[in-house]
Amino acid sequence: MDTNWSVRLDPETRTLGARTATRLRELIRDGVLAPGSRLPAEPELARRLGVSRPTLRAAVTELIGDLLLVRRRGIGTFVSATPRPAHGLERLTGTGRGLALLGHRPGTTGLRVRHVLADPALAAVLRVDPGTPVVHLTRTRTADGVPVTHCAEWVPAGLLPEPTALDTFGAEDSLHDRLAALGLPLRQAVTRLVPVVPDADLRERLALASDAPLLLLEQRHFPAAPGDRVALFSRHWYDTGRIDLQLLRRG
Amino acid sequence: MDTNWSVRLDPETRTLGARTATRLRELIRDGVLAPGSRLPAEPELARRLGVSRPTLRAAVTELIGDLLLVRRRGIGTFVSATPRPAHGLERLTGTGRGLALLGHRPGTTGLRVRHVLADPALAAVLRVDPGTPVVHLTRTRTADGVPVTHCAEWVPAGLLPEPTALDTFGAEDSLHDRLAALGLPLRQAVTRLVPVVPDADLRERLALASDAPLLLLEQRHFPAAPGDRVALFSRHWYDTGRIDLQLLRRG
Repeated sequence: MDTNWSVRLDPETRTLGARTATRLRELIRDGVLAPGSRLPAEPELARRLGVSRPTLRAAVTELIGDLLLVRRRGIGTFVSATPRPAHGLERLTGTGRGLALLGHRPGTTGLRVRHVLADPALAAVLRVDPGTPVVHLTRTRTADGVPVTHCAEWVPAGLLPEPTALDTFGAEDSLHDRLAALGLPLRQAVTRLVPVVPDADLRERLALASDAPLLLLEQRHFPAAPGDRVALFSRHWYDTGRIDLQLLRRG
Repeated sequence: MDTNWSVRLDPETRTLGARTATRLRELIRDGVLAPGSRLPAEPELARRLGVSRPTLRAAVTELIGDLLLVRRRGIGTFVSATPRPAHGLERLTGTGRGLALLGHRPGTTGLRVRHVLADPALAAVLRVDPGTPVVHLTRTRTADGVPVTHCAEWVPAGLLPEPTALDTFGAEDSLHDRLAALGLPLRQAVTRLVPVVPDADLRERLALASDAPLLLLEQRHFPAAPGDRVALFSRHWYDTGRIDLQLLRRG
């Protein structure tokens, strides 16, 4: 119990509630809060974490939703006895937020934003006509400074309020957050999982020492309503030697 | 509309409700029931499929759960406008049922059931002591006769009513169904996704023509309650060139 429980200041995660949830995840991941153990009483835990009780309560609710904590009525809140992934691929989040949920510091290198015209293959995937203007982003995502996934992303320009709306997209920005702010929330994605051998370009971008296969996630993202247009198509090449990709499946 | 809509007799799927659901999936997959279109009225559709209305209703409810159909109150039931995978990895099912949901005829070759003692690595994964008796199954699963995944599965013998309870396990059997019947329902699984280069054994079992990478699913299966023991650990090596692995992610 000598561990410093305090919530750390981390400019990558925005609200104090999010930082509190991250700190609790770390304490669980590191075993300071042991599987199956009962959380300290709320006033005590809030004091140790250095946050208010409402802030703590919001973070605890988030971790219950992630199955990391279990509330037993009249008894207390417990760390799940069965370790589960804090963030599984079944939950749709942006890559940066996904890395943060796993306790990593997310980063971006080599960001490029371009305007292209959809070739027939891309047009079919995006369900637009060939030749339709598309905003194309490429970037490499890092976890604690180490490259873990290279991303190529395509957004039909016609879905944006202005075709240039993503021209100011920066290395610190979240595409999920930005698209939501532009009226294109990404609520569902259909993801195809394909193991692939990295080519020379991917080996360089991810600084790979071998040609061990990568896991490609090909994703079509949809706004809320069924039948909506494809708001984002993305390809993410993950080095699973550097980051575990897990999934919680429920029957 | 000349398509024969009738539910086919298929000994692999057991109940008429399941066969009806499979037939509807096929009609959607083949575009006979077009994306976004309204289903025929229940009496008409039941007549075309050659099943009773209650049987049809159960199948429709199942497909609504799979997001293939959408019910609009007071209007009718529609085929989802956005094609979605009938079966995503986010839903936990046995491999045979998963293949059937995709419209394939599942099969099994090379089944072996052995009794082994857990080595330290397996013991850690199963959360048992090294040397604990474990039932080990190996088999190759086929879709329409083509090998698509090789499976290695381990069940702690001590969790079974009798250590020999799986000795009669047959090529047509479902391990999920069998374990449920033995009091070990598999309700959640934590799945790790790892791209791997096939070794000579896997190349032979899956009749692979190349050494293109496979997708390994490493899965720990848990009964209902959090904190339960690991009921099944499995490794499935999928040839994604032969079968698409998809996932529906929700925000």
